[in-house]
Amino acid sequence: MSEAGITLQEVKIAIDTLWVLLATFLVFFMNLGFAMVESGLCRSKNTVNILTKNFIVFAIATISFWVIGFGLMFSDGNSFTGLSGLLFASGMDNSPATGDAYTGVYSSLGWAGVPFWAKFIFQLVFCGTCATIVSGAVAERIKFHSFLIFSFIICAFIYPLIGHWIWGGGWLMELGMFDFSGSTVIHSAGGWAALAGILMLGPRIGKYKMDGSTKPIYGHNMTSATIGALILWFGWFGFNPGSTLSANPEALAHIAMTTCIAAAMAILSSTVTSWITQKKPDLSMIINGCLAGLVAITAPCAFVSMTSAAVIGAIAGTLVVFSVFFWDKLRIDDPVGALSVHLVNGVFGSLAVGLFAEQSIGAELGTGALVSNGLFIDGSVSQLLAQGAGVLAVALFVFSVSMVVWAILKKTLGLRVTKEEELAGLDIGEHGMEAYSGFQIFNNL
Amino acid sequence: MSEAGITLQEVKIAIDTLWVLLATFLVFFMNLGFAMVESGLCRSKNTVNILTKNFIVFAIATISFWVIGFGLMFSDGNSFTGLSGLLFASGMDNSPATGDAYTGVYSSLGWAGVPFWAKFIFQLVFCGTCATIVSGAVAERIKFHSFLIFSFIICAFIYPLIGHWIWGGGWLMELGMFDFSGSTVIHSAGGWAALAGILMLGPRIGKYKMDGSTKPIYGHNMTSATIGALILWFGWFGFNPGSTLSANPEALAHIAMTTCIAAAMAILSSTVTSWITQKKPDLSMIINGCLAGLVAITAPCAFVSMTSAAVIGAIAGTLVVFSVFFWDKLRIDDPVGALSVHLVNGVFGSLAVGLFAEQSIGAELGTGALVSNGLFIDGSVSQLLAQGAGVLAVALFVFSVSMVVWAILKKTLGLRVTKEEELAGLDIGEHGMEAYSGFQIFNNL
Amino acid sequence: MSEAGITLQEVKIAIDTLWVLLATFLVFFMNLGFAMVESGLCRSKNTVNILTKNFIVFAIATISFWVIGFGLMFSDGNSFTGLSGLLFASGMDNSPATGDAYTGVYSSLGWAGVPFWAKFIFQLVFCGTCATIVSGAVAERIKFHSFLIFSFIICAFIYPLIGHWIWGGGWLMELGMFDFSGSTVIHSAGGWAALAGILMLGPRIGKYKMDGSTKPIYGHNMTSATIGALILWFGWFGFNPGSTLSANPEALAHIAMTTCIAAAMAILSSTVTSWITQKKPDLSMIINGCLAGLVAITAPCAFVSMTSAAVIGAIAGTLVVFSVFFWDKLRIDDPVGALSVHLVNGVFGSLAVGLFAEQSIGAELGTGALVSNGLFIDGSVSQLLAQGAGVLAVALFVFSVSMVVWAILKKTLGLRVTKEEELAGLDIGEHGMEAYSGFQIFNNL
Repeated sequence: MSEAGITLQEVKIAIDTLWVLLATFLVFFMNLGFAMVESGLCRSKNTVNILTKNFIVFAIATISFWVIGFGLMFSDGNSFTGLSGLLFASGMDNSPATGDAYTGVYSSLGWAGVPFWAKFIFQLVFCGTCATIVSGAVAERIKFHSFLIFSFIICAFIYPLIGHWIWGGGWLMELGMFDFSGSTVIHSAGGWAALAGILMLGPRIGKYKMDGSTKPIYGHNMTSATIGALILWFGWFGFNPGSTLSANPEALAHIAMTTCIAAAMAILSSTVTSWITQKKPDLSMIINGCLAGLVAITAPCAFVSMTSAAVIGAIAGTLVVFSVFFWDKLRIDDPVGALSVHLVNGVFGSLAVGLFAEQSIGAELGTGALVSNGLFIDGSVSQLLAQGAGVLAVALFVFSVSMVVWAILKKTLGLRVTKEEELAGLDIGEHGMEAYSGFQIFNNL
Repeated sequence: MSEAGITLQEVKIAIDTLWVLLATFLVFFMNLGFAMVESGLCRSKNTVNILTKNFIVFAIATISFWVIGFGLMFSDGNSFTGLSGLLFASGMDNSPATGDAYTGVYSSLGWAGVPFWAKFIFQLVFCGTCATIVSGAVAERIKFHSFLIFSFIICAFIYPLIGHWIWGGGWLMELGMFDFSGSTVIHSAGGWAALAGILMLGPRIGKYKMDGSTKPIYGHNMTSATIGALILWFGWFGFNPGSTLSANPEALAHIAMTTCIAAAMAILSSTVTSWITQKKPDLSMIINGCLAGLVAITAPCAFVSMTSAAVIGAIAGTLVVFSVFFWDKLRIDDPVGALSVHLVNGVFGSLAVGLFAEQSIGAELGTGALVSNGLFIDGSVSQLLAQGAGVLAVALFVFSVSMVVWAILKKTLGLRVTKEEELAGLDIGEHGMEAYSGFQIFNNL
Repeated sequence: MSEAGITLQEVKIAIDTLWVLLATFLVFFMNLGFAMVESGLCRSKNTVNILTKNFIVFAIATISFWVIGFGLMFSDGNSFTGLSGLLFASGMDNSPATGDAYTGVYSSLGWAGVPFWAKFIFQLVFCGTCATIVSGAVAERIKFHSFLIFSFIICAFIYPLIGHWIWGGGWLMELGMFDFSGSTVIHSAGGWAALAGILMLGPRIGKYKMDGSTKPIYGHNMTSATIGALILWFGWFGFNPGSTLSANPEALAHIAMTTCIAAAMAILSSTVTSWITQKKPDLSMIINGCLAGLVAITAPCAFVSMTSAAVIGAIAGTLVVFSVFFWDKLRIDDPVGALSVHLVNGVFGSLAVGLFAEQSIGAELGTGALVSNGLFIDGSVSQLLAQGAGVLAVALFVFSVSMVVWAILKKTLGLRVTKEEELAGLDIGEHGMEAYSGFQIFNNL
């Protein structure tokens, strides 16, 4: 204890906490990003509904993750689930003590030297992100109350369980899977739940015509969509470097840069791909390209070089454009491209760890000394296999459980609004109000 | 002094300053949040006017708080006002020295170990918030220049004086009132000034019909309103934990979480209340519900448990919906619900300290060892009485002074635009421009 | 090494890195601010094009600054350009070592004790800002691909070279020019490139009539413009204090306040000037007034008193209004006022260092002990002459090189869209989509 009335250890805890909270606030702000991208890319008649869904889903995440999710995800238990201090995150915990000094039931987070509620709130904003991914995919036709119930279930049970496997000391962590900030845990998981929802809901009226052609349904507000995309990128500077849970200077700077380069390359590659395939560079494709690059670098950001990050981003930006065409060919109607961004690139990003990871980078940055070199680094496949196992396990679990949950909701409360309500718009049908009162709007059917 | 060329004490000052400035920037950003919520919930024909008011009000706050307000609020003086170093915040001050080492005229902030201008700018953004609350309540009918003059007076005199009583070492602080981040100092104070303005202005043309019924006047842009609400929530993560004025890890994490839980519960309870009373969940009610939860937790955030925060939020979200109906029944026309959010829930939040505060939490977090247990914690009423006294004193002072100021403005410059201007919209009348040039808009009278 | 497993020096690096990254994220977010101000002040038919340009320009900045720009700007070389470790920022560097301990090829940044990639990403977001300034000035008529190519050239070559002269150890730095956060390096440089672009493009169709009068072309969305302005101000709290590259408490707090006061005074003075000259306070003038104040304080923010900052802001806010009239009189068509904000006030702000700088402030804050007192402080002109030399040198170089680049683009790919496309809007012509699908919009020719 110096004359400053503070020890070096206390200062370290303070600076780590400051960083974790800053990252938390940035990730929280992504709620606005998702709300804007999703509502902007849909029609004006469904705007209030989409905004309300995105607004309320974080409230549901907060309560359900507090009541049950956090305990399932991070508490001591077995390889499949946490079993201690389940309700209200109320188990024993002496954070910010770390390592051997840590005594508590959330030992999978015992390495992080920040107060308990700092750990909790950071994990909470991640959980919220997972749930919002579903929102865009099922937009413009889902019943409001059924969506709310599904959101509760994914935040309270589905996300925490697969999170436990990978981040909570579970079997995929033991297997050696690495997913630094959640290409799998957050993005592909959210994507599989979204795919299940789309399959149970069916496409929007008029999207796929009898003659086999597809009717483009344009977003009503590209200003909104751009606001959303740049807020998401801004938030991702909390999302990716934040998973250090400590103000580790080399790691923070490296991860911020891999994140930035991947997004930049993805913007450029999606622009070129869109320009070639669609004749003109389509802003919604470029926006989704940017997000695809961010999703893809989320797992490998802490283990790859700048050059690898650039390559990962370039692939992601191309992948997302072809993926949008692919889902339309299958007549799987995803209004905002959530599957192409989060599912396809969540899977790609998770596998990219097995392709591009460098053990020396993980060791030097202190972000994962145990990660193995990827296939393109030294030809070994062990990391790629672990990543593949994780991707597959999460796919099977999340998709099948989600199908069951959506099916039960369909049988009981119903999933889809009436045809009349869908044509008139969910804003009037579900909320009794319009988004742009006073503006003259075509009824965009 | 180590080989790093820096002492532990200097590091502590640096990290505290970093936190105070981060919190400042977040609270500053709330200016955009207010501008968006208020303009979004009003009609398109008054959008430029509302945006301009919100934009310029922070400029006025900056200059008036610098010229006079800060000195009145925080300088040494008597129980009712500061009296030293009044003009241009130019009194003696040796910040970041603290405690006994502090020598200067702003001793009510002498406990905070950050540079003088860090203290100043943090307090400035709070002052700006108080003035913007008025803006929404008087929207769509007030003369631009009269609003600007009132804003100067509230920032230079009204807010600093009551701020002195509670945060500047004045009589309410001596009485034992606790208002951690300003449910009373900022929110109910702004609310009383707003109520006075509404009473002097009268309702908008057409709002209350002869037959006793109320005509709903819809907001023109729910996208704006949602942007605003999420920016405000984001900013509140600076507003509430920022009042620590030091990077105290346990306090920061705890307060961020009580803030988050209260907002989440308020969203859910306002959704349910709106669903029941209005048949469908109204997004503007949910937005105001969220803000109500944030306002209500502002005073008690540093003294209550997570469970209490959840209860406070749940009450706030219900309260705000009934409050909106209540003011309309009284024919008090508040276009954006500012009274229901800031006045009603500012009062409730201030009283909530007296109901839910736990002395052990204030002591453990270092946020207020002298706070007494609330009524619901151990049955004692002493804290509740102190809170009630503060609420009442601020109500009487701010409301009556505001009435006088508004009345003088009415007699001299005039408060309300002409009927023709109100019908045509203040954008053309006051600014000679439209917000959405080129868009076809119904004349929403 | 204490029991905390960390040294005081490591803590210092961590806190400095945290600050540099926070500032980086804030400046990054300014991309959204520029996108909103520019698109909001133009017509709806060109919105997608402007948003796309602003979105993609940061991607181009990222890649070009990484591939070549950073090396040219900061690596060891001669007085005119960096010459070491040019490609992919891959030169030797042992950051965060500082001073004598630093060994590497980027010695102009050797004083900053943060990891290499933290230095890089902070400089990158500055580079991105410079390129976006051009975007608004050439809006509503430039070919998309020609703009992209110019953006690459300014980020890879033009900006890095003049940056080397002033910040990279070049001849203007040796001459004693001070430009703390880039009134010249970023803003007037971007402004000169924009002026060259405007001259090569010519005015928009219909802007200047045969009879000598000017047709006002209104922005389509003042909500967007206000969002943009407040995001830019928010980002400027990273832009100006961030150039410390260390969490120096006194400097951070002082600079945040000079920045805030200048913006506030500029808002007030532009409001008054607009009110007097245009009869009514025009929101777009007030927005540009705010930005003008921020640009003008960017160079002197770390060397001037609060009172000087207020004077600088007041002048900037008046200057910008008359400047808008001035360019229109010259029939130089700048749709968003970029020349008035960035060029005119970038020049003014750079000269303001020579007028208002106080050596004692630079020394006390540690932001520039070698700056000389300005003309208005002690009557000496040496600093003003150095500033004038810098302003002139950058003007000549950037303007003439930009003219050549724009001319080559005009001869080869073409600069301007066809008359038909300009009338119909670039959204359809360049991107095949509309910004506000479903909304009824007048064809604002």
